[in-house]
Amino acid sequence: MPIITLLTDFGSKNGFSGVLKGVIWKIAPGVQIADLTHEITPQNVLEGSIALWRAAPYFPPGTIHMAVVDPGVGTLRRPIAAHIADHFFVGPDNGLFTPLLEQAYRLGQPAILIHLDKPQYWLPVVSNTFHGRDIFSPVAAHLASGIDLELLGTPIFDPVKLELPRPIKVQKGWCGQVLLIDHFGNIATNLSGDLIQGEKDLVVTIAGRGIHRLTNTYGEKQAGDLIALIDSENFIEVATVNGNAARTLGVVVGDPVELHFQ
Amino acid sequence: MPIITLLTDFGSKNGFSGVLKGVIWKIAPGVQIADLTHEITPQNVLEGSIALWRAAPYFPPGTIHMAVVDPGVGTLRRPIAAHIADHFFVGPDNGLFTPLLEQAYRLGQPAILIHLDKPQYWLPVVSNTFHGRDIFSPVAAHLASGIDLELLGTPIFDPVKLELPRPIKVQKGWCGQVLLIDHFGNIATNLSGDLIQGEKDLVVTIAGRGIHRLTNTYGEKQAGDLIALIDSENFIEVATVNGNAARTLGVVVGDPVELHFQ
Amino acid sequence: MPIITLLTDFGSKNGFSGVLKGVIWKIAPGVQIADLTHEITPQNVLEGSIALWRAAPYFPPGTIHMAVVDPGVGTLRRPIAAHIADHFFVGPDNGLFTPLLEQAYRLGQPAILIHLDKPQYWLPVVSNTFHGRDIFSPVAAHLASGIDLELLGTPIFDPVKLELPRPIKVQKGWCGQVLLIDHFGNIATNLSGDLIQGEKDLVVTIAGRGIHRLTNTYGEKQAGDLIALIDSENFIEVATVNGNAARTLGVVVGDPVELHFQ
Repeated sequence: MPIITLLTDFGSKNGFSGVLKGVIWKIAPGVQIADLTHEITPQNVLEGSIALWRAAPYFPPGTIHMAVVDPGVGTLRRPIAAHIADHFFVGPDNGLFTPLLEQAYRLGQPAILIHLDKPQYWLPVVSNTFHGRDIFSPVAAHLASGIDLELLGTPIFDPVKLELPRPIKVQKGWCGQVLLIDHFGNIATNLSGDLIQGEKDLVVTIAGRGIHRLTNTYGEKQAGDLIALIDSENFIEVATVNGNAARTLGVVVGDPVELHFQ
Repeated sequence: MPIITLLTDFGSKNGFSGVLKGVIWKIAPGVQIADLTHEITPQNVLEGSIALWRAAPYFPPGTIHMAVVDPGVGTLRRPIAAHIADHFFVGPDNGLFTPLLEQAYRLGQPAILIHLDKPQYWLPVVSNTFHGRDIFSPVAAHLASGIDLELLGTPIFDPVKLELPRPIKVQKGWCGQVLLIDHFGNIATNLSGDLIQGEKDLVVTIAGRGIHRLTNTYGEKQAGDLIALIDSENFIEVATVNGNAARTLGVVVGDPVELHFQ
Repeated sequence: MPIITLLTDFGSKNGFSGVLKGVIWKIAPGVQIADLTHEITPQNVLEGSIALWRAAPYFPPGTIHMAVVDPGVGTLRRPIAAHIADHFFVGPDNGLFTPLLEQAYRLGQPAILIHLDKPQYWLPVVSNTFHGRDIFSPVAAHLASGIDLELLGTPIFDPVKLELPRPIKVQKGWCGQVLLIDHFGNIATNLSGDLIQGEKDLVVTIAGRGIHRLTNTYGEKQAGDLIALIDSENFIEVATVNGNAARTLGVVVGDPVELHFQ
């Protein structure tokens, strides 16, 4: 049986994320469930979409990823499910899956999108405020049990698209921005390692600080040093060795980061 | 094999919740375990009892819910297990199961309570401060392995009861209180949606602010608006659209909330 | 199939801990995974080593414990795996396993250490900054699948050792220190209950406060009382009944704690 993963902004203090597992196991006993995270910043669809896009590929083909960051719950926004490349996705139609869809289109991989409009695959009573429990968990569980994606609703071709921040070409370099800040205070940017193309004499500028050349890894420099390196997803990252770069620099998601070749 | 769920106030930083799983899997290999939450406010039995009562029904019949919010650990307070409606419960006899018991009595469902007084079903050495590990996990695992509830101890009929806050009838309405505040800062009250009985012209008053009429869901109003709605458990909830109502209003658990019909 | 446990300093907000499970399940489908904690203080190897040493013994023989607190990731520090007593361990060679190794040597239990130098058991592409995903998870999964430890690398006999804080004998007692502070603010020390040897007339001194005699458990005293007791791991603990002793006393890990017999 496939795995189900959970990514939400529910936090961990009220038992909301636990309830999802109960609903899933009532329909698909024995399915394995992995929490990706329940600590997405409340209502931050972009943050959720980036975290999902980074994590999903590491799961086996056929994995069902349920993602719920859903400020429009209970309104006319559509509940959807998708088959993108070799994984399945379930969640609100608000752009959570945009980075995955864009990547699939770029690589010529198939993508099928379904508007979940068949209440027989939901809980019998659907609240206005907790579709993670009432719609998305049951649908993910039915998928895991072997129900065909196409049976769960009607195909759509116009998913809501999130505007993803893209680096801009400037003279002798690129202007990007802070994409996410991790638990260590390391600063991930939207500047791909591919932009560098072998250039070594470069400067990364952030919060008025210029960092000359890239370092291979944290432990190559001294504690407290500000460094730039290629992160585990092949993007430029700014970090403080054994420290918290985001806090030290006062940087937040969306702040500009520049890359210049000399 | 049934599922075991865990609800505690242990937090997640010391590995205490992980240890429970080791103990369980030593006795009941392969049993599936779901964390409901380990972030109940330390020693807050009422908060734990509400979270458990809200989450438990979503799990399959036969699920074993272990709940440990246990300021009296190591004293004469009894360790207990229970069969309430079609679920099992294991934890300290301090009122954690009161909302579930009251609901069962109200609905005429069976409830059996057992004082856990058979040390052969515990770890060989029992500490004074960690019965979650030494008594409750082994008992939950033995239940999952198929040991009869009645073998684990002696029936009791006088469980400790928690005083649950109940709404009070006032002229043209009800006076209730804040029951819990969730991760989003949404404010759950003890005012059931059933109290409204079709009345539409109503005012919910909290922290000196009056909210006229109920909204169906968050996305119907503008970001920043203070709204009242029926939550996913059929209770009146106060929320700020895309914001944190509890923080904005300075409200804490136990604060009064009034409902008036006009 | 054995269980895999995870202990890291990755936090829970970015999905990093979830990714580990995807990698593991790609190689060892169906293996059960328990999160011990992902909230070790960033880069605090000592804290991680203590948490692992306390939790591991409660898991079944054959359990594979993966521990990643890894400030030296990507440098020359070795990735290692170990067979200590009847458990397996995978992680960086930086002292994370020192308390477990010392205990095994003390008890005359076997310990085998392997330098993980066979890339065929890793992910095909290894980043410089996320060996938890790229090396340690695949190795743990291969172990769970039945690959012999010895096939994963080359035996070593010189693991990096952490300097563990030890109590010092003073006149009429011992001088120890704060080893960890738990979620409740309870203060665990490195003063073993064995040091007391039946002495009852004793004083525990911390932050200028003297606590006379030990209490058996929290509930024996009044809320707010400062007490000393033997914790669930047989070490002296200082706690405030229904309160947060570490916050009240302003104590941090490493602060001195004295035990005097009168």
